[in-house]
Amino acid sequence: MSHAVSPLAPKTIPDMPVVEGVRFATAEAGIKYKGRTDVLLMAFAEGTEVAGVFTKSKCPSAPVEWCREKLGAGTARALVVNSGNANAFTGKTGRDTVAVTAAIAARAVGCGEDQVFLASTGVIGEPLAPTKFEGVLDAAAARLADGPWIDAARAIMTTDTYPKVATATVEVGGVPVVISGIAKGAGMIAPDMATMLSFVFTDAPIDAAVLQGLLSATVGTTFNAITVDSDTSTSDTLLMFATGTAAARGAPRIHAAGDPRLTEFSVALHRVLLDLAHQVVKDGEGARKFIEVQVMGATSDASARRIALSIANSPLVKTAVAGEDANWGRVVMAVGKAGEPADRDRLTISFGDIRVAAAGARDPDYSEAAASAAMQAEHIPIRVDLGLGSGRATVWTCDLTKEYVAINGDYRS
Amino acid sequence: MSHAVSPLAPKTIPDMPVVEGVRFATAEAGIKYKGRTDVLLMAFAEGTEVAGVFTKSKCPSAPVEWCREKLGAGTARALVVNSGNANAFTGKTGRDTVAVTAAIAARAVGCGEDQVFLASTGVIGEPLAPTKFEGVLDAAAARLADGPWIDAARAIMTTDTYPKVATATVEVGGVPVVISGIAKGAGMIAPDMATMLSFVFTDAPIDAAVLQGLLSATVGTTFNAITVDSDTSTSDTLLMFATGTAAARGAPRIHAAGDPRLTEFSVALHRVLLDLAHQVVKDGEGARKFIEVQVMGATSDASARRIALSIANSPLVKTAVAGEDANWGRVVMAVGKAGEPADRDRLTISFGDIRVAAAGARDPDYSEAAASAAMQAEHIPIRVDLGLGSGRATVWTCDLTKEYVAINGDYRS
Repeated sequence: MSHAVSPLAPKTIPDMPVVEGVRFATAEAGIKYKGRTDVLLMAFAEGTEVAGVFTKSKCPSAPVEWCREKLGAGTARALVVNSGNANAFTGKTGRDTVAVTAAIAARAVGCGEDQVFLASTGVIGEPLAPTKFEGVLDAAAARLADGPWIDAARAIMTTDTYPKVATATVEVGGVPVVISGIAKGAGMIAPDMATMLSFVFTDAPIDAAVLQGLLSATVGTTFNAITVDSDTSTSDTLLMFATGTAAARGAPRIHAAGDPRLTEFSVALHRVLLDLAHQVVKDGEGARKFIEVQVMGATSDASARRIALSIANSPLVKTAVAGEDANWGRVVMAVGKAGEPADRDRLTISFGDIRVAAAGARDPDYSEAAASAAMQAEHIPIRVDLGLGSGRATVWTCDLTKEYVAINGDYRS
Repeated sequence: MSHAVSPLAPKTIPDMPVVEGVRFATAEAGIKYKGRTDVLLMAFAEGTEVAGVFTKSKCPSAPVEWCREKLGAGTARALVVNSGNANAFTGKTGRDTVAVTAAIAARAVGCGEDQVFLASTGVIGEPLAPTKFEGVLDAAAARLADGPWIDAARAIMTTDTYPKVATATVEVGGVPVVISGIAKGAGMIAPDMATMLSFVFTDAPIDAAVLQGLLSATVGTTFNAITVDSDTSTSDTLLMFATGTAAARGAPRIHAAGDPRLTEFSVALHRVLLDLAHQVVKDGEGARKFIEVQVMGATSDASARRIALSIANSPLVKTAVAGEDANWGRVVMAVGKAGEPADRDRLTISFGDIRVAAAGARDPDYSEAAASAAMQAEHIPIRVDLGLGSGRATVWTCDLTKEYVAINGDYRS
């Protein structure tokens, strides 16, 4: 099953630089897909620090449980990702598969099993045989290289219509370091977790605890601020690896959160994660429009966020955008249903630059023609001012089209 | 815009008896639709008691605010319902429209303005001119009759594909009384309110306070247990009117909640409301399947309800049902994302009589053929046993089809 590339896909793919200390190879294990890569093996330099954020699902996948457990040690030497099977809700078999796969990978790259991180994406509930990885990982280990990154991004795709990469180069203590990431979507995307799979790599020397703090702080306004369909996956995983190899070029090791030498780095990390998160939304199943929901004037940031998500998850708002219908009444509905403080008669709503409603009624200058014209854009900004306080939040989503239904009505079969 | 009648529509329409003390007429006010009735005027006998449950939206419509205010007095003489315009988010104009409409109706049927109840359904944010009702209500008042009920149900439809009526006849103190109701859906349906518009009538003599208690107690397992798209309307209204005219035939007046003479009546009221609620779901926009989600073994009934709603509102579960795909992995996902206590390894999931998953993995006897066959039914029961406690809940929903997207992508324009 393949679908046309999303019209919202980035027009260009950035040149992805080498990340020192990171090598990888992809392979075809034939887990579900035929004629495409479905396994990614990565190997990291000794001393690589790791941090992670995972799904908050009460029914997490076996690899998520494994990663959570291994994260404590803070060091990583390998990462194995497969697409086509999520190894979720697979009971004891699933746990065995994870352990056996880690053993195979550890042997292939020459490290301890506890230093192997794993992620799986695809169908839930289907047993995944570890034999699938047996010869494949050994062969991949023989082909490890420092590029091309687009191949890594491609191997982890499921219903994604394009591979997702992002990169930034910044200085830490005057020494250039790289931050590069890959991600995959494209359904079962909702906040409260590290949406689907994303892996981020840097050669900066940063302690695992500091890395974890950075990652956790950045995820709220990036991956946790996107939603495709309000459905939280069992497998969502965001892992960040810091090889520390830039130390050889004079980069200082960062031991403390709040170290001023990290300022530029954390801004760039935010940019890379937001870029990847937006790419996930823009590849939302069946997406034709990129929607930015900005809520301000709420009684708190948390309240603004809940209202923004109520709008972004409303099927009626999303189908209206799909139909290029400036149906702001549905935005009112979504504000009202959020259960958060709101005063109908203080509400202001804009679509892009067009103010459609103010003070609890349609804007006196409302023009159906102007509003309809604004809805034809590919990027639809919806702005809501509650007029109550200074709380604000922005979330991103896509429209809900017939293609979403088509893709999800026949995904498994 | 009209759509084919839902395949889930009831095969027969019940004979609707006269409800003593209730007369009504419908009219064409041309509010939005052409060539169909869009106004319902009802007149009630003197002494009619009234109770109501309304949307919990923070942005309620003007008629909802009016009804809430008037409900305190507990008596009603008239009801005016229009379709095509919700008179919601219409600011001061909306409040004026409500007051003027009540005055017109009061004059037409000869009662106080405070005894007139109002409900509007349709587009949000479009001003509704009270002049629409001027001559129309006077003319309707001259045509008041005690039937046919199907006309009343038809006048309040929006995207509904069939009119919704239900009735029961029971005894109160040995005297037969009637409970009859009408309802309209069919989108913007979600719990936490009295889903969309429904009006229920009885000739039993019951005090307003008792009626209110009965209605509030019954709504939780009927109208508040259905969801089409998780979107809560600004206008949801359930009103119940008791004309008390059965007193003339010897029915005792009920002054106290818990009066044993109400037992049969309250069972029948539940049946009528559940029937109407199911009809709303079965006319869910684009619906092809009726889904019953039953959750048991939760730590509490409230927890079971939240998990059931998480499943019933999941776009991925609903699209899988639309595609007749026994994708129980998505049920696992929806249980996991609910945030309620759940132990993956104790979970049992069945589709109808087919157990598909048990003890945290696919059922050992799982047969794809049997599961797929079960998904071809029109009525899909999804049963989840959490194996933790004795909490249980049942909610009802429909599948998510391309037609839902089509209907809502072009509703306003």
